[in-house]
Amino acid sequence: MNGRVERLRVELERLEVGSFLVSNPVNVRYLTGFESSNAFVLVQGEQVVLMTDGRYAEAARSVQGVELVIVDREFLPGLAKSLAELSEGPVGFESDHLTVARYSDLSSTGVELVPAAAVVLTLRAVKEAGELEDIRRAARIVDDVLVRFVSESIVGRSEADVAWWIVQAIHGEGADDVSFEPTVGSGPNAALPHHHPGNRRIEAGETVVVDLGAKVNGYCSDCTRTFATGDLPPDLRDIYAVCQAAQAAALAEVRAGADLRGLDAIARMEIEASGNDVLHGLGHGVGLEVHELPALRPTAAGLLVAGNVVTVEPGVYLPGRGGVRIEDLVVAADSGAEVLSGFTKELTSLN
Amino acid sequence: MNGRVERLRVELERLEVGSFLVSNPVNVRYLTGFESSNAFVLVQGEQVVLMTDGRYAEAARSVQGVELVIVDREFLPGLAKSLAELSEGPVGFESDHLTVARYSDLSSTGVELVPAAAVVLTLRAVKEAGELEDIRRAARIVDDVLVRFVSESIVGRSEADVAWWIVQAIHGEGADDVSFEPTVGSGPNAALPHHHPGNRRIEAGETVVVDLGAKVNGYCSDCTRTFATGDLPPDLRDIYAVCQAAQAAALAEVRAGADLRGLDAIARMEIEASGNDVLHGLGHGVGLEVHELPALRPTAAGLLVAGNVVTVEPGVYLPGRGGVRIEDLVVAADSGAEVLSGFTKELTSLN
Repeated sequence: MNGRVERLRVELERLEVGSFLVSNPVNVRYLTGFESSNAFVLVQGEQVVLMTDGRYAEAARSVQGVELVIVDREFLPGLAKSLAELSEGPVGFESDHLTVARYSDLSSTGVELVPAAAVVLTLRAVKEAGELEDIRRAARIVDDVLVRFVSESIVGRSEADVAWWIVQAIHGEGADDVSFEPTVGSGPNAALPHHHPGNRRIEAGETVVVDLGAKVNGYCSDCTRTFATGDLPPDLRDIYAVCQAAQAAALAEVRAGADLRGLDAIARMEIEASGNDVLHGLGHGVGLEVHELPALRPTAAGLLVAGNVVTVEPGVYLPGRGGVRIEDLVVAADSGAEVLSGFTKELTSLN
Repeated sequence: MNGRVERLRVELERLEVGSFLVSNPVNVRYLTGFESSNAFVLVQGEQVVLMTDGRYAEAARSVQGVELVIVDREFLPGLAKSLAELSEGPVGFESDHLTVARYSDLSSTGVELVPAAAVVLTLRAVKEAGELEDIRRAARIVDDVLVRFVSESIVGRSEADVAWWIVQAIHGEGADDVSFEPTVGSGPNAALPHHHPGNRRIEAGETVVVDLGAKVNGYCSDCTRTFATGDLPPDLRDIYAVCQAAQAAALAEVRAGADLRGLDAIARMEIEASGNDVLHGLGHGVGLEVHELPALRPTAAGLLVAGNVVTVEPGVYLPGRGGVRIEDLVVAADSGAEVLSGFTKELTSLN
């Protein structure tokens, strides 16, 4: 853990901030290993102060390398008071997490707060060996679930029923949990990139987009495959081929040093060249959260670095008709992409 | 749905804000019925504008009574531009939800932003008949699961295994989903109010705190019971009785008009009079989220109103030894509390 705080300290020197307040609970967990819905960390010189409320006090006592301060559950004025007492000089804070109301309360104590976005999130984007091992295991669980899935009969079953089968299968393969509620979008619902599985019964001759992930030691995987229920009409077969080509083209360019928006552009051009619209970016980072840095989108800036874990997931959607998305989870390396999603990307048909 | 926007308009007049930007996705859902991870609503005079990104465009087209604006996924500058074009005069915003970074970006367009906390959250705290019906169903599902649970053998099984049994049972009883990952805390872990179920094997002669909830049409239930695995040592039997008495005492005073912090004080005094510490507040509101307004805590201000749905859940914890929490879900009415949690609060022993 201490290596992470050390990396943060280097960032803080670069930002010229002597103290830094971490409010995002996922970042608190990343830095200290302490899991809760309500905790702050103040990093200042050699000091690491963990602040949480009474519900978590007992669990927090076992956290190594921190000073523990138990504050009121509301944190304010408890947190504000502690912060005013503890901090020396201006305090950097997570402006992409702290709400305006909490900011106002904290700054009312006279502490000078300096906004800093994506500081710990940027550290988290580069995975350590142990984190990669958990993500690889979470990805393998999804592969194993998909292998079992293709033996299922799904025509006539509701999307929600199939989604629940997937949740059970992910637990059955030894995951701690799902990394998000699986998406099962069939027929016209397959055209909705973020469809919530419902009562619609899956029919023959349509596409079914299945987006799923597992969690191992807190680390997520994320994978999408699109299945056919028997023979597909030509327009759906066509978009499958377009999506497959776009995914392969982008994937071939993934490596440390690749331009984030350039990767997005590769898939985007393939899809637009086929006369279809692009509804979403190519992908996103995955780690303790299923959506984290870096983003592969037209608005992203920067390059992939070795140790980034990202999805490569173009989608092609025909409103009212169906859709196709193919998503691999990959690790950026100097030599290319380590693809963690092993299940076939060839069109597979289920009954 | 329109009744909700109407109630919001009344609030806005009171706040003297002509336009109001809703950024909390749960509040967006409450006002428009539209579910997504990324949407804003601008309410202004007769106008209701729904802003979301391309991934949700198709689904958003079916939302009634709104003007739809599709913006870039990052929302900024898309949202800022739309807001600057659409808004007339100062715009109220959810200061308890919007981050400092988004606030800075939005205000950089020249729109005057006026902080307003807990506006829609306060509307949500008073449930309509249809919402109560969903919450009652979600509570009944938990009752049915607990009835099945007491036939289970749990000694020797891991907490995580028992928690997964509960998740499956909640689905089996027809819930859409769990409202949160169930807590199963056994032995020393029962002393941790927010314990995450792990590999610890449940032993004989200890308390097991089981905290669970179901979701029906998006509405949550929340219930805790504490079980014994065979005969308990005297200290654990004692805190069970203390917790039971504290819960009954507070519950007896729940009605429209009851003081929020006064209710908390009733249970707190019972627990402290027995020589035990109080680690958390008495309860919280439940609805589309499992924690919402009103809070029953020492720092809360105000009174219960008819239609509030709250938990009444005192806990007594002996660090390293065990703990007891008993939680009912109740609706505040003029005449008292409608208790939605039907499962017995007498100490029940499992094998």
